[in-house]
Amino acid sequence: MPTTRLLIEYDGTDFRGWQRQAAGPTVQGALEGALATALRQPVAVVGSGRTDAGVHACGQVAHFETEAAVDTRRLQASLNGLLPPSVAVLAAEPAPDGFHARFDARLRRYVYHAATEPRALDWRTRVIVRPAPDVAAMNEAAAAFLGRHEFSSFCRTKSETTNRTCHVQRARWAEGPRRGDLAFEVEADRFLHGMVRALVGTLLEIGQGKRDRASLGDVLAARDRRAAGPAAPPHGLVLDRVDYPHPIVLP
Amino acid sequence: MPTTRLLIEYDGTDFRGWQRQAAGPTVQGALEGALATALRQPVAVVGSGRTDAGVHACGQVAHFETEAAVDTRRLQASLNGLLPPSVAVLAAEPAPDGFHARFDARLRRYVYHAATEPRALDWRTRVIVRPAPDVAAMNEAAAAFLGRHEFSSFCRTKSETTNRTCHVQRARWAEGPRRGDLAFEVEADRFLHGMVRALVGTLLEIGQGKRDRASLGDVLAARDRRAAGPAAPPHGLVLDRVDYPHPIVLP
Repeated sequence: MPTTRLLIEYDGTDFRGWQRQAAGPTVQGALEGALATALRQPVAVVGSGRTDAGVHACGQVAHFETEAAVDTRRLQASLNGLLPPSVAVLAAEPAPDGFHARFDARLRRYVYHAATEPRALDWRTRVIVRPAPDVAAMNEAAAAFLGRHEFSSFCRTKSETTNRTCHVQRARWAEGPRRGDLAFEVEADRFLHGMVRALVGTLLEIGQGKRDRASLGDVLAARDRRAAGPAAPPHGLVLDRVDYPHPIVLP
Repeated sequence: MPTTRLLIEYDGTDFRGWQRQAAGPTVQGALEGALATALRQPVAVVGSGRTDAGVHACGQVAHFETEAAVDTRRLQASLNGLLPPSVAVLAAEPAPDGFHARFDARLRRYVYHAATEPRALDWRTRVIVRPAPDVAAMNEAAAAFLGRHEFSSFCRTKSETTNRTCHVQRARWAEGPRRGDLAFEVEADRFLHGMVRALVGTLLEIGQGKRDRASLGDVLAARDRRAAGPAAPPHGLVLDRVDYPHPIVLP
């Protein structure tokens, strides 16, 4: 069956997350609704992964199958006309044979946006953090996440995943461009439920001197969510990019 | 009387503009409410100028007078704790003697944010413009605004201002940083009611080939709002900066 893939950006503020559910607006639900209208048939969309309520994306990828091939250029324009302004299809293209948005993803990149100075224009996508954390201390500590580790201590306890090993390839705070801006950039082959927000919450405790910067090895070894810090608020988090063997091309 | 001045950022989405009014939330109203709580006295705030409903700012300036001197550092922290997240006080400082936020302003700078590609993360502060306008044509045309002109053709007809001469010192579209981003940067000693949005709406007509690019001299000479194009939507507009002989210093 012909498969189409989409590159999707969304402001998660007014959604109950990516995944379709019985009640409340979701990004998947909005997309499937727009696709059903544009294609005049019910369509099930598969995303690269879920995002929690309030979490944003500028690089979510999803695929769906249809009986007949789709005019992807026209579809993109139709979808952007049908979707609310908080969801945009950045690209739509025929997917490589057998493509699966979730199983084929090689690397996922999230960025968590914070600020140590007052902010208002982007208050829906950036979390104010006071007192200002020690960025060097957080980066020194974050190095403990690099490589292949068991991340149970950073996974929501109710999660049903049995394999909790992730290969983290980047975990670094960057400053700017505006004075007081902070962004935690993290890349891995996969992430567990609630993992990025738990990493950020734990690193911020270290940056604010509430937790020892050498403690993360012990936290990982504990394999217990209670060993790590609190989850940082969802609205600072953006699913920035998902990498595949054959990258999606912007039109 | 001791005068304090504030540098203010706001997301205008949920406000009926800057100016206090009988019904509905305004930025001035929110500020005066927070000041009354922080200072335990009623305070009247004077802004550098009004912004319309839905228009944002990252460089609005306002002043107020008090009987006694104010601890501005403490006040800033109090205000940011009291204000909604859509309003932030970036700086608070004792104003120079006799300072007036409106009368002392030498130059005002606005930026209008648009995009020719789909966008979702900043949909509240950026206007999608399709088809993509010809930026070179708009910049060639915008040069007609530079210098001292009578801008009645770009002023809301109901405005009561009699002096409608403005000295425009910059009027230029810039591209980026993201592909498809467009920003119109305009600076003048003063702006008339609705002027920036009328300038943008008229230039976009030129950029989209709906209006002759050499016509702006005639539009200015007409001194009639009907000669210019429609007002661009408010939510792309940001009051970026207000310049004074003694600049405000970020803490």
